[in-house]
Amino acid sequence: MIDLYTWQTPNGEKPVLMLEECGLDYRLHMIDISAGEQKTPEFLAINPNGKIPAIVDREGGEDHAVFESGAILIYLAEKTGKLLPAAGTARYETLQLTFFQVGGTGPMLGQWHHFTNAAPEKLPYAIERYKKESLRLLGVLDDRLKDRDFLAGDYSIADVVNFGWARSGLSGLKDEGADTLTHLKAWTERVGSRPAVKAAIEKLDHAKRSKQG
Amino acid sequence: MIDLYTWQTPNGEKPVLMLEECGLDYRLHMIDISAGEQKTPEFLAINPNGKIPAIVDREGGEDHAVFESGAILIYLAEKTGKLLPAAGTARYETLQLTFFQVGGTGPMLGQWHHFTNAAPEKLPYAIERYKKESLRLLGVLDDRLKDRDFLAGDYSIADVVNFGWARSGLSGLKDEGADTLTHLKAWTERVGSRPAVKAAIEKLDHAKRSKQG
Repeated sequence: MIDLYTWQTPNGEKPVLMLEECGLDYRLHMIDISAGEQKTPEFLAINPNGKIPAIVDREGGEDHAVFESGAILIYLAEKTGKLLPAAGTARYETLQLTFFQVGGTGPMLGQWHHFTNAAPEKLPYAIERYKKESLRLLGVLDDRLKDRDFLAGDYSIADVVNFGWARSGLSGLKDEGADTLTHLKAWTERVGSRPAVKAAIEKLDHAKRSKQG
Repeated sequence: MIDLYTWQTPNGEKPVLMLEECGLDYRLHMIDISAGEQKTPEFLAINPNGKIPAIVDREGGEDHAVFESGAILIYLAEKTGKLLPAAGTARYETLQLTFFQVGGTGPMLGQWHHFTNAAPEKLPYAIERYKKESLRLLGVLDDRLKDRDFLAGDYSIADVVNFGWARSGLSGLKDEGADTLTHLKAWTERVGSRPAVKAAIEKLDHAKRSKQG
């Protein structure tokens, strides 16, 4: 059994999509980041960086904790032999588009969201900076998808990690130019229609509502 | 033979450290990002995201392009069997601390640097935001290194990717609190004293000076 500690965010939903796709048994523990639960001593013992998601795999000899969503997905892919080719061009295209999300769309859309919705003062320079870079990065994905169904060969962890951030960007930046990214939009619909993705989103939504009472 | 396209930055030096450590033959192509050379059609054909570093491996049957420094390092580790354990706890600790750098210290120190040195206006809120988060992230690494020589078992790609960003943070934030991170500082000296790291830094420095004439 795998214990998953997470919340309903683009990073937090990645391992839920993956666990559902791989058909693994898991227990969902909701860590309410709006209440700061990711900074409790119990959670910091699992991830000293104080960020969701994290897993503890209790199968096999000893408990195995993994944090960082990209590392969790590689761990689960290698545990099951699914969604990450073992060798060849498709393997490294999958990995490079996984890192592209972790180092690119994730932090840039995250900063755009912060300066647009959360910062105590409106700073036009910062908002414009992150809007422009987020749209550029989403455009790189859109261009890649103009002649492909998935980001790197078959459905892979590259699609899993990019899905939530692309949806968030397409929605948040809709009126700022993201509505022209038609290949990316079609891909989010393609990914979103997968039974495992639907099940993951529903379970996470239900668990969040249960947690908040 | 591997062609490496890069520049003298914390991300750009990662593959040089790795290629030297693995003893691989490579040609160094300096892409002057201060002159925008990462946005030429020739370079965009290798990395459509227009960022250094990127490699093209011309060994074996067909040319193999890889971009995103994290993916390049995994590619080289798997090509040589070096610096990334094939299985077990050390493998996933290595991968999680690699993603920690790509999604954490890299973008946060990058934004701190931008708002401190490059932005056309001084925005105290943004400078403070990225200073604080960068120091917190460097502190996570410092704490991890309090009883270890390297970040995850033996010297690994986790050390390679974190080295340049840690040095940059320790130097840039020295008077802002980074001087208390003594474990991290000792580790940068330990990594920096490796012959492969010294050779990499010298070659990159020499190539940059040659390029700029």
